[in-house]
Amino acid sequence: MNHGPSGLSVAVPSTALFTDHYELTMLRAALRAGTAHRHSVFEVFTRRLPEGRRYGVVAGTGRVLDAIANFRFEQDQLEFLDRTGVVDGPTLQWLAEYRFTGDVHGYPEGEVYFPGSPILRVTGTFAECVLLETVVLSVLNHDSAVAAAASRMAIAARGRSLIEMGARRTHELAAVAASRAAFIGGFDTTSNLAAGYRHGIPTVGTSAHAFTLLHDTERDAFRAQVDSLGRGTTLLVDTYDVAEAVRAAVEIAGPELGAVRIDSGDLLLVAHRVRRQLDELGARDTRIVVTSDLDEYAIASLAAAPVDAYGVGTQLVTGSGHPTCSMVYKLVARAGGEAPDTPLVPVAKKSAGGKLSIGGVKWGARPAGPDGVPTTEIVGTGPVPEELAGDLIQVELVRGGEIVGAEPPSAARKRHREALERLPLSAGQLSRGEPVLLTEYR
Amino acid sequence: MNHGPSGLSVAVPSTALFTDHYELTMLRAALRAGTAHRHSVFEVFTRRLPEGRRYGVVAGTGRVLDAIANFRFEQDQLEFLDRTGVVDGPTLQWLAEYRFTGDVHGYPEGEVYFPGSPILRVTGTFAECVLLETVVLSVLNHDSAVAAAASRMAIAARGRSLIEMGARRTHELAAVAASRAAFIGGFDTTSNLAAGYRHGIPTVGTSAHAFTLLHDTERDAFRAQVDSLGRGTTLLVDTYDVAEAVRAAVEIAGPELGAVRIDSGDLLLVAHRVRRQLDELGARDTRIVVTSDLDEYAIASLAAAPVDAYGVGTQLVTGSGHPTCSMVYKLVARAGGEAPDTPLVPVAKKSAGGKLSIGGVKWGARPAGPDGVPTTEIVGTGPVPEELAGDLIQVELVRGGEIVGAEPPSAARKRHREALERLPLSAGQLSRGEPVLLTEYR
Repeated sequence: MNHGPSGLSVAVPSTALFTDHYELTMLRAALRAGTAHRHSVFEVFTRRLPEGRRYGVVAGTGRVLDAIANFRFEQDQLEFLDRTGVVDGPTLQWLAEYRFTGDVHGYPEGEVYFPGSPILRVTGTFAECVLLETVVLSVLNHDSAVAAAASRMAIAARGRSLIEMGARRTHELAAVAASRAAFIGGFDTTSNLAAGYRHGIPTVGTSAHAFTLLHDTERDAFRAQVDSLGRGTTLLVDTYDVAEAVRAAVEIAGPELGAVRIDSGDLLLVAHRVRRQLDELGARDTRIVVTSDLDEYAIASLAAAPVDAYGVGTQLVTGSGHPTCSMVYKLVARAGGEAPDTPLVPVAKKSAGGKLSIGGVKWGARPAGPDGVPTTEIVGTGPVPEELAGDLIQVELVRGGEIVGAEPPSAARKRHREALERLPLSAGQLSRGEPVLLTEYR
Repeated sequence: MNHGPSGLSVAVPSTALFTDHYELTMLRAALRAGTAHRHSVFEVFTRRLPEGRRYGVVAGTGRVLDAIANFRFEQDQLEFLDRTGVVDGPTLQWLAEYRFTGDVHGYPEGEVYFPGSPILRVTGTFAECVLLETVVLSVLNHDSAVAAAASRMAIAARGRSLIEMGARRTHELAAVAASRAAFIGGFDTTSNLAAGYRHGIPTVGTSAHAFTLLHDTERDAFRAQVDSLGRGTTLLVDTYDVAEAVRAAVEIAGPELGAVRIDSGDLLLVAHRVRRQLDELGARDTRIVVTSDLDEYAIASLAAAPVDAYGVGTQLVTGSGHPTCSMVYKLVARAGGEAPDTPLVPVAKKSAGGKLSIGGVKWGARPAGPDGVPTTEIVGTGPVPEELAGDLIQVELVRGGEIVGAEPPSAARKRHREALERLPLSAGQLSRGEPVLLTEYR
């Protein structure tokens, strides 16, 4: 493993340093003050959806669970914290033993959320919970932003195949998480090999313009590709002249040619021309893949075009205009002393400058309305009213430090599709709008 | 190390799978066709700057060098590629031996760039160069986007201290790279402990609202913090009433109080009030740090406010509206056969649909104009004209597979400051504009 001064970020041995400096100085001061072990509840929520968005998508929960499991301070990390004076001796000792022993509840991955939804609740001592703030928010804010964009693109694609191919447009490891989030949001495959390796997302890909340019002629390149990858491959037809390339492609691969890919030009026009040409050449089953700077609006505008699959890069991995969510991790209740069973007191910031929050441990419920469709997201504190007991959204994720909510990304993907189907129909509109459920506080 | 199906992305043992599937299928087909070892040149450039931006900032070069050094296929990665059928037997064998043995030249890290600038040039066989495309672009597109935002913020801050604190708003490892890029762009410190650990960026931080809320009173919290972190600490004064908090802060820490932090409200107004109050209380040296949803425009608007330091999060790590660059990695020349010394032939995509590029190996030069200030970025192919020999921008980064261009982030930071100083004055305007240098092709 490489720990060099400009080392690529692949070798960080635990998640413990994905943490803001102030989490450790708060711990240090609280340990000294005798307040660090007060029983505490932190909640993740957002005050608003990105401008114009109608729902949010919870993604990253599985990665949060892994981050918690891997959150331990190793020897060289402790030495770093000691050498740089971030913490004092007693804090170092405490960190060396650190394992999260508390509980986590939350909206399950793939579920939708609205302003105020209690997306995640972390319960334990102040000390053990406060340390998790930064990495929990990093994961949820990033992954949920990508999943929300993916979900809108999946709506726009109306069942046509969606390929995530944004690796080159985002940080190399953010790209792996983005593939996973896109899959949860409704994408089918990814170009990213690490996402296949780490998360089991199916990977696809055949060739780029460089492959055509490497060869003396386009026909040489097509023959080389078909020889190696078979007639079912996808040939890229826009390096020189599209019509000539399509003719050569079918001549070389025969009508069994899997697909052609178009990566530039007026996709609507070109797709129609290519479809007609393929059909005339007898390649009726050859599919058309388009891949040029697509977003949900471009995908929607191609609904009438003879396109079989969309490859999406930049706009997907950058959240289609909203590269992050505004989720925060707030202390909402804590005990008045360190003794076990000291009762919890709700707490909240109260200054005049905004960023207000509501104290107290919250639950979220989404009851169906008279026609079976919910109209409100109910966020409450205190006992759950009996009539809402069946509509609660949170599930148990960590119990006494043990991960109990792990599941494969495919489970979250399925849950997201089902969650979308239960929302009011207006959730599927791509135009800017208000959240489709009103948040009602109880 | 954790390789679980939803494992957090910290344990990928090499950079080889941060790669799009099609790079490997191109390799597979080229190996079979006998074209894989044609001598080739790939170049990284961008066709345009983000809308309205006047210059770009090269960042990530140091991480690219590490990515190349760590690009090797390990046993479990090869097994994955075999099991999933991405490559065939001969390709697997070739990958098992893979080490980059070619050359890399490029604009040094921290340098500015313009449309068409040959930011990076990778030379070797097609096979060894094509594999690097995805990870090279991931690193440069991400890091350069953050550095460009940081550079504009540094201009706006006019020498006041800048703290990067966006970890919670981006992927946990993107955050580490973002801290590094922000430092190169002109930031002074970061909240991100992993950025301190991995890249040596100075880390800072004291406390959040949760720390105040943990304690029975704000005064208890302030006392606990000062007891542990000393009078030089920064107290957060906007949990309840700002004026009351400032009074308590100076009472508890004395006039030696290091700083107060304001994280909400009308920062211009509040900063003026707090400065007046601190001065009246005799705390004339106590600094004011502001940290609420800042970007370069908000920073500029606080130029007249008595603010000593800015903490910037979301807008910095998301590139202030431009979370990625549009850098591409294109084959620009290759030999007509596999024999060594076969001459290079310039190549370029030529279809009517756009995304055109210029074939041939390029150099970039930035000669000073009559008044000492450059007006053009000259991008040429072929021999360098004698009068430009002293103005070439590219440097040697990798020679025969060996890294020769490694340097600490501080060197890139210094270079960026100097590069900015040499640009026309209009580079420092935050308003939307054209690139300050025109690209001239020779």
